Amino acid sequence: MVNDVAVLGIGMHPFGKFENKHLKDLANTAIWNAIEDAGIHASKIQAAYVGNCLGGLLVGQESVRGQVILRHAGFKGIPIVNVENACATASTAFRMAWLSVKSGLHDVVLAVGVEKMFVGNTAKSIEALSTATDIEVCGNMGLQFTSIYAMNIRKKMDRYGWTKEDLGLVAEKNSYNGSLNPYAQFKKPLSKEEVLASKMIADPITLFMASPMGDGAAAAIVCNEKIARQLKKGNPIIRVAASELSSGHASMLESTPKESTTYTTALKAYEQAGVGPEDIDLAEVHDAMSPAELKIYEELGLCNEGDAIKLIREGRTKISGDIPVNPSGGLASRGHPVGATGLAQIAEVVWQLRGEAGKRQVRSGDGKLPRFGLTQNDGGYVEGDQAASCIHILSRV
Amino acid sequence: MVNDVAVLGIGMHPFGKFENKHLKDLANTAIWNAIEDAGIHASKIQAAYVGNCLGGLLVGQESVRGQVILRHAGFKGIPIVNVENACATASTAFRMAWLSVKSGLHDVVLAVGVEKMFVGNTAKSIEALSTATDIEVCGNMGLQFTSIYAMNIRKKMDRYGWTKEDLGLVAEKNSYNGSLNPYAQFKKPLSKEEVLASKMIADPITLFMASPMGDGAAAAIVCNEKIARQLKKGNPIIRVAASELSSGHASMLESTPKESTTYTTALKAYEQAGVGPEDIDLAEVHDAMSPAELKIYEELGLCNEGDAIKLIREGRTKISGDIPVNPSGGLASRGHPVGATGLAQIAEVVWQLRGEAGKRQVRSGDGKLPRFGLTQNDGGYVEGDQAASCIHILSRV
Repeated sequence: MVNDVAVLGIGMHPFGKFENKHLKDLANTAIWNAIEDAGIHASKIQAAYVGNCLGGLLVGQESVRGQVILRHAGFKGIPIVNVENACATASTAFRMAWLSVKSGLHDVVLAVGVEKMFVGNTAKSIEALSTATDIEVCGNMGLQFTSIYAMNIRKKMDRYGWTKEDLGLVAEKNSYNGSLNPYAQFKKPLSKEEVLASKMIADPITLFMASPMGDGAAAAIVCNEKIARQLKKGNPIIRVAASELSSGHASMLESTPKESTTYTTALKAYEQAGVGPEDIDLAEVHDAMSPAELKIYEELGLCNEGDAIKLIREGRTKISGDIPVNPSGGLASRGHPVGATGLAQIAEVVWQLRGEAGKRQVRSGDGKLPRFGLTQNDGGYVEGDQAASCIHILSRV
Repeated sequence: MVNDVAVLGIGMHPFGKFENKHLKDLANTAIWNAIEDAGIHASKIQAAYVGNCLGGLLVGQESVRGQVILRHAGFKGIPIVNVENACATASTAFRMAWLSVKSGLHDVVLAVGVEKMFVGNTAKSIEALSTATDIEVCGNMGLQFTSIYAMNIRKKMDRYGWTKEDLGLVAEKNSYNGSLNPYAQFKKPLSKEEVLASKMIADPITLFMASPMGDGAAAAIVCNEKIARQLKKGNPIIRVAASELSSGHASMLESTPKESTTYTTALKAYEQAGVGPEDIDLAEVHDAMSPAELKIYEELGLCNEGDAIKLIREGRTKISGDIPVNPSGGLASRGHPVGATGLAQIAEVVWQLRGEAGKRQVRSGDGKLPRFGLTQNDGGYVEGDQAASCIHILSRV
């Protein structure tokens, strides 16, 4: 593959509840924010990959979602591919855009992720989410994501001595981070006591640990790095140092960190980027239920097996820590409009690497900006295995 | 882009009505037929792109359709991307597989297209099809595909002197071709009189000119051409000489042949393959309503503007003609399970280029096998424009 790939621009529509906005409106804001951020004319965009999960089931728009969205945003004639991978949809769209540029097929490509989950019918939205499994095996049979996560977390508590307070600490950290993020759905910092006292959803998961329903969109424009160098004249470039995607091969309930799909996918990503977990300066990870962040520390190799609780107890994954995780607030605080999340993770890492993250800016002890950021985005499960694991490493060069 | 790409294997599940078969069953047959045809071990497949349009709306399987299908087929761990582009879904999945190999990202990649449209509720199936438009503009308002095609065809009749007999001749030709195709949904040869006497659907389109509801699947395995050469030892290779995708830029109702999205997409495909329309030995085209085949002759440059009726009247697009079109029977006879059609077109061209098309084998006047075959697959429309136009050129080398 011939070209280095840079992220030229990123944009978001805030995550939250936007009753009068439809897919087109949400996506339009993210797309044009990304174009403005990239500093290019929209006509330079040669192709687009559009991610959405639930448009068909929740708002009735299927089949040509990307074409409808891009026409509304003012585009005509470019190749558009609609991409779907459950909650890893947007990172998959980003990966396809990366591949289009990496290969030399295109020079400038747009990736968009958008979701509209508030449709005035919570039961319908939850039923739609259950299609991220094999519906003939468990999707329609009550084994909802939250309970899968709960079983997984209980097993980890037994095996590694995680306490309820540890689980609360993750949500406490991420709600604080979210309070600093203007795009976050929830901006109220919560204490771990408030988290643990909130309504029990699926023991040990309480309401404030769970990612909410959400509307929102995120977009990125990627380009041949040579173009980025011309446009950015002397300013740092954000390079896509690695892109990896796998479907699951190990049970979410049974696997140790090193058996997990996240681990094997991350290994390939580290190899592609030529770095190790020790080089990662921050990570945006898939804490659909915030305690899951703990197992992800271990699966990404940010610590050894069993040491995740040390990281959270010692505050090492706070914005002020040595390996900040989810400075954006993560899925539970920034929000999780499923088809948009992966690109919101990319956006956060880009802002952080550029030093544009405002009050939630990550810096090393000596005040330096981070150089390597990782995003980890999961999607669905089939016969107990993670259906999609998509990991990107971005670097400032 | 570094590698030449070959089609190593193709497979289909017959198109038709299969009441007791679901997406997984249909796809499984196509996938394993393709693997057997490729002559490789399934473990050599490194990634998969899975196309489906209506699974979410018609059978309730959304989000991870490809993962569910591939797990059922016995795959675990490989990267899977779910792809959608209305009726051009399967050709888009094939294009993504091509890009993955062309770029050097992978060496052997599977593309699958599958659709299940017979769900015991025709109204529901038709409503699902209407999502291949902007549902807020016209999808839910009665302007169904058939009527768009009818308006387009009436305009062409006025402008170019097409008669009802010409329209009937296309269906007559294609129903004969379909009668020779073991995978076709309809195998009864029809006379043009029978076609014209069948029920009027949207004047001038009669029932036997319209593609039917259908269940079915098709798959292709593409690989780095070097691998194909090792495996095929001296036998001809089927190369993907061009892959092009556009979204529409010109109204389906107003455009002349050279203004059409098909024309501009085809031009790029010819350029990529280094050939012209005069080099094409056969074409599989998107005759969702069979008279549309006439305009496609002109849009692909197989004849000059206004000359399409000469081609059909003189029998030149019959299997025995000098430029056979839709030897498979096309969408109206082979059938049109929407998310599978593009790969069925690819399968037909591969069989034809290899000389494996049995009674419908295309040969030149001196008995030679065809060398260049083209597939043209359309998907959806947004604000009057074709939403996706995907064209491939395959060559025997």
